[in-house]
Amino acid sequence: MDQYKSFHCINAMQLQAQWIVGFVDGEGCFHIGIHKNQKLALGYQVLPQFTVVQHERDINVLYALKNFFQCGVVRRNHGNLWCYRVRSIHHLHESILPFFEKHKLKTQKNINFLKFRRVIFLMKKGEHLTQQGFERIQKIQSQMNKNKSI
Amino acid sequence: MDQYKSFHCINAMQLQAQWIVGFVDGEGCFHIGIHKNQKLALGYQVLPQFTVVQHERDINVLYALKNFFQCGVVRRNHGNLWCYRVRSIHHLHESILPFFEKHKLKTQKNINFLKFRRVIFLMKKGEHLTQQGFERIQKIQSQMNKNKSI
Repeated sequence: MDQYKSFHCINAMQLQAQWIVGFVDGEGCFHIGIHKNQKLALGYQVLPQFTVVQHERDINVLYALKNFFQCGVVRRNHGNLWCYRVRSIHHLHESILPFFEKHKLKTQKNINFLKFRRVIFLMKKGEHLTQQGFERIQKIQSQMNKNKSI
Repeated sequence: MDQYKSFHCINAMQLQAQWIVGFVDGEGCFHIGIHKNQKLALGYQVLPQFTVVQHERDINVLYALKNFFQCGVVRRNHGNLWCYRVRSIHHLHESILPFFEKHKLKTQKNINFLKFRRVIFLMKKGEHLTQQGFERIQKIQSQMNKNKSI
């Protein structure tokens, strides 16, 4: 996508809060990744992310989400799929969580969101860097995104 | 789903128009089926349908859609998947089309919706029963839901 097209897309589409809730109820994902990383004291890194994936024909919707939340990035996922993604703990805590606290998801994805939220709060307090905190996060993560592929 | 549960679900969830637009932008499908039917003069039947499919854990969302539009049915799709479905030309014409004309879809699904709408208008005039009208519908249908699986 060239810069002009991105700029045009951002400015063309205004999203309403309830549209975003409906779209994320359908297409959004709150995910906690736990990856091995020997450079860290506990040997693992916790990587939370909020993503919305779309075919490239609807990349303008992803830029509109980025514009709405004023954080995150739009990146190629794979093939013709692109995603809007927020990984920064600060932005998740300051922008994404407050939005979905105020505008509640209507599907069972809300249960997932609440677990995601608990992990972000723990990470904000640095608990992912302690053995006890990390184990709490592992337990919460193991209960998320069940039946995702069904 | 027992009657009580369905009743409870219908009454528990109020949907806002923009939430529906967002959710349908993600999960909805406007489809024109063309099936062989030797009982009909042209040998084919045109079957339009608007559907939203969800895992059974979110069946209450499907009942809420049914309650909002005051038409259609909630049926098991296959396995753990259920769908909200509107097939009646009358209900599509009187309820579904006016809603998405007033509350425009934001993704490219809107292009599909406009083609679907053209077919419903042709069918309301009975043109699907003429060779010429049927061929017009076939042509429109062939241009719908491209790249659906991508």
